[in-house]
Amino acid sequence: MSTAESQVSLAVSTVIFALRPSASGEPELVLPLVRRIREPYEGQWALPGGPLNSNEDLAEAASRTLLETTALEPRYLEQLYAFGQLDRSPDDRVVSIVYWALVAGDEADRAIQSENVQWFTADNLPELAFDHNLIVDYALWRLRTKLEYSRIAHGFLGETFTLAQLREVYEVVLRKPVDPGNFRRMVEASGTVVATGERLAGTPHRPPQLYRYNTSIDLTDQGPLSRLSAPRTPASTRGDNS
Amino acid sequence: MSTAESQVSLAVSTVIFALRPSASGEPELVLPLVRRIREPYEGQWALPGGPLNSNEDLAEAASRTLLETTALEPRYLEQLYAFGQLDRSPDDRVVSIVYWALVAGDEADRAIQSENVQWFTADNLPELAFDHNLIVDYALWRLRTKLEYSRIAHGFLGETFTLAQLREVYEVVLRKPVDPGNFRRMVEASGTVVATGERLAGTPHRPPQLYRYNTSIDLTDQGPLSRLSAPRTPASTRGDNS
Repeated sequence: MSTAESQVSLAVSTVIFALRPSASGEPELVLPLVRRIREPYEGQWALPGGPLNSNEDLAEAASRTLLETTALEPRYLEQLYAFGQLDRSPDDRVVSIVYWALVAGDEADRAIQSENVQWFTADNLPELAFDHNLIVDYALWRLRTKLEYSRIAHGFLGETFTLAQLREVYEVVLRKPVDPGNFRRMVEASGTVVATGERLAGTPHRPPQLYRYNTSIDLTDQGPLSRLSAPRTPASTRGDNS
Repeated sequence: MSTAESQVSLAVSTVIFALRPSASGEPELVLPLVRRIREPYEGQWALPGGPLNSNEDLAEAASRTLLETTALEPRYLEQLYAFGQLDRSPDDRVVSIVYWALVAGDEADRAIQSENVQWFTADNLPELAFDHNLIVDYALWRLRTKLEYSRIAHGFLGETFTLAQLREVYEVVLRKPVDPGNFRRMVEASGTVVATGERLAGTPHRPPQLYRYNTSIDLTDQGPLSRLSAPRTPASTRGDNS
């Protein structure tokens, strides 16, 4: 065992996506970033994250650090990739295990917003600290690929939603129009949503039906990894880390 | 920054798949395992791997440790997942970044084989050290999923191959028969193989055509990660690690 080994430190970061109204009122894909308050990259924006504590699981560390920095508790959390290039941090060797997460719009509204925590348009970011632009690009690619063959669109929505709201997730994330009639037939054939019998409040004339997700179907197929219980509760609520 | 952080150590392991003839002569999906010569799990079989050195990339560490333990240099290497459950190692906290690799049959024949390095049938493993059974199960799931929508089957083959050899990869890995006529049409339509104009030597009557992979097409689509050059040359050939 080499002594060089002990010089590698381990961090966890998370790319958090949400849909929120832009200045024009149209929804857009956004993510929260944290301004760095120390070197390296002091003053630049970076993904929320922090070092891994020895007494917490990787997904727990992702949940904890994003709760601490943004107050967000995502509906969907999945490991993205471990980034470990030699030159990714100028002063020391850091391997970052990166998660990606989806939060519903109403949850996103509850996020901390301050001078040092802000939402950015996912496809129009400034130059970020470390290799975080590459990490966001890869997370965007994974999100768009996975939206097409899984049910993760529901990670952006609340408990109940209209079919128009579900369709809007696809349109905004994939940046292309989706035909309403085809979409309705496709969703109804998939069995992934259930009509609640209720209708959207506050809409005149014929208010649209509300649906909920059919929770007997997982949002994604993780194969044998589903045997690892992915904790959704941040470590901070389960005991003191000190 | 918590002091607990420094108690986490980082290792790299690799699940290496190859197709080799079984006792009956039929090819089967196999992987090499290394017998542990120290506690914990002394005497049990485990995935090849070792600690990450601070001066090597993650993929380099995967290549180096598997060259050191098995003498193998894979045709295909991809990051699988970072495993970091609290209870995965009894004595200390180890986060393992796991890669998976494919080697061609002739390369597999060159692997070290000894009392402590042996090939096992992938679907019939003994109880392995740590969480390595779960890791292999997940790698098998990823291999089978990815074989269906990418060109990674070529990772099991040499420079040139017959269509029957390519079809055999699908049949053995997916454990189901594949219709030869449909398969030929599907492969020819995909543009992923190129006829070499040569024929398999040593075959009587009409020897089958030899093909090679169309290297203008990547074996898989890694999206923005392709910007990270995945080194295929183990670190040990590029300089001394000491």
